[in-house]
Amino acid sequence: MDAIRWEGNTLYLLDQTKLPVTEVWLAYHDWRAVAEAIRTMVVRGAPAIGISAAYAYALAALAGGDLCQAKAGLAASRPTAVNLFWALERMERKASACGGSSDALIAEAKAIHAEDVAMCRAMGAYGAAVVPEHARILTHCNAGALATGGYGTALGVIRAAHEQGKVAMVYADETRPLLQGARLTAYELVADHIPATLIADNMAAALMARGAIDLVVVGCDRMAANGDFANKIGTYSVAVNARYHGVPFYTALPSSTIDLSLSDGSQIPIEQRDKDEVRALGGVQTAPAGVEVYNPAFDVTPHTLLTGVITERGIVYPPFRENLAKRFG
Amino acid sequence: MDAIRWEGNTLYLLDQTKLPVTEVWLAYHDWRAVAEAIRTMVVRGAPAIGISAAYAYALAALAGGDLCQAKAGLAASRPTAVNLFWALERMERKASACGGSSDALIAEAKAIHAEDVAMCRAMGAYGAAVVPEHARILTHCNAGALATGGYGTALGVIRAAHEQGKVAMVYADETRPLLQGARLTAYELVADHIPATLIADNMAAALMARGAIDLVVVGCDRMAANGDFANKIGTYSVAVNARYHGVPFYTALPSSTIDLSLSDGSQIPIEQRDKDEVRALGGVQTAPAGVEVYNPAFDVTPHTLLTGVITERGIVYPPFRENLAKRFG
Repeated sequence: MDAIRWEGNTLYLLDQTKLPVTEVWLAYHDWRAVAEAIRTMVVRGAPAIGISAAYAYALAALAGGDLCQAKAGLAASRPTAVNLFWALERMERKASACGGSSDALIAEAKAIHAEDVAMCRAMGAYGAAVVPEHARILTHCNAGALATGGYGTALGVIRAAHEQGKVAMVYADETRPLLQGARLTAYELVADHIPATLIADNMAAALMARGAIDLVVVGCDRMAANGDFANKIGTYSVAVNARYHGVPFYTALPSSTIDLSLSDGSQIPIEQRDKDEVRALGGVQTAPAGVEVYNPAFDVTPHTLLTGVITERGIVYPPFRENLAKRFG
Repeated sequence: MDAIRWEGNTLYLLDQTKLPVTEVWLAYHDWRAVAEAIRTMVVRGAPAIGISAAYAYALAALAGGDLCQAKAGLAASRPTAVNLFWALERMERKASACGGSSDALIAEAKAIHAEDVAMCRAMGAYGAAVVPEHARILTHCNAGALATGGYGTALGVIRAAHEQGKVAMVYADETRPLLQGARLTAYELVADHIPATLIADNMAAALMARGAIDLVVVGCDRMAANGDFANKIGTYSVAVNARYHGVPFYTALPSSTIDLSLSDGSQIPIEQRDKDEVRALGGVQTAPAGVEVYNPAFDVTPHTLLTGVITERGIVYPPFRENLAKRFG
């Protein structure tokens, strides 16, 4: 399963806002349209945003456009996932080195894409080792093939554990307001024949109280140097509940998601999104039109609630500041 | 605001499944139709279910029907809220005492209704005393006028505190899957001009982490003798987060919600509801059609996470088993 393709100098994105009901691929020739696709979440997930931005930068080069403008415009599309800035920096370095050759920049974007899939596979192999037999695993939002170049970060760990016959059940939080768990994670799990049960976000604690969750694994949009990390809103609530119930809690991420320039999670910018995401669903009004809404797209989970960080170079355990610096500094 | 009216030997229920978009009152002459209204949540909320069942029992008497059959049929409509069984027992005692006189049974149902409003007012007065100045209060689901005879249990506390000028903001969890917080609580708060902000359920923890919640107050569907209590799914997750963040956590309930026959919360029957409540919303499909769903309507919060129980006779504090028995035994 994948959601990003490059063919004939065109970027194709699977429109994730339409899943699971319809599968529509959209074609992009202009970096501005890709920036808009990131903003409106046609493509989402930190690694997938980075890959899409890299291809968009290559589209700007193909069109003979201003690469500085393209970089700035793409960087302004969403604020939290650091992979976006990481990918754009890497593309800019390549542009400097190759004199803005579109062929070289397309090759660089393809390399970022291919490396991401390889990192997901590596994370899967490392992460599967901490999944017990007959595991009942909870995940939040979508950190799957659709959120990455393919295979997934948190879902990569689950896929690898499933390939080893260790997964009894995956509980997918539906993940309000935009329901990436219901629409995307459930879709990926059903497609791959991995046992899956969908729950509303507020049901996870009741499952933990019954002893029905053995392990939590989620993705990550940005990790600070001390291991604090931003991920989809609701991750923090799951982390608090996991700690209360003694359930191991992991995040899985490629090293491009780690931002050692930030000392702790308080420095991660958190995007506030449109109020109507909470006041309506799929065009159906679900609340009084005038009611005020608080709608942060992400929350920050402190490293103190984290059992381990699953990366393409192995699992990092506490103390996180020291061990992240050693591995990625 | 109210959702239950009796006029001209007819029970009128405000169809809560259609709020907040349309206000439709449905007329009932047959107890069977009322049982169906309870099952499909045209009327919901433990006290409101009890009141509606009492009126339905009176409708059975008016029609000259079999009162035993009516009682059994109404009792089978939903399993968790104990007020349903409490109201039916009280109506049956009245029927025995008055020889099944419909006039006497209508009067008894009206008395149950009026007493419920009076109890909500008393709860409000007691509960408002524990609300600090400039309070930012979180509530889950709807324990308001719509869930009771009027005024509300948890929202009764909030209304009374608001009348005293102490409420800076009420955060309403939207309460998936059926969105009683978004559809009903937000509707009541906006109608009463109480400052209100709607959030997805998974955002409450992030607000607590920011120190933005001073107090939590929720309703209750059944409380066991030790203070463990069932309430709308998601209440338990809020309680765990409140404890983790040191936020006081109260439930407000009339004494008809206390079931001293159950020693602890493990004995409270928990209703499982239709899977499509989670797989769709307002007719919009939100998940792959075939995916498995876990959809308990309620969860049980252990008394250990509870600061106090706000009742019409005052606030009960730990040790709950002893103090509930003293007050209500």
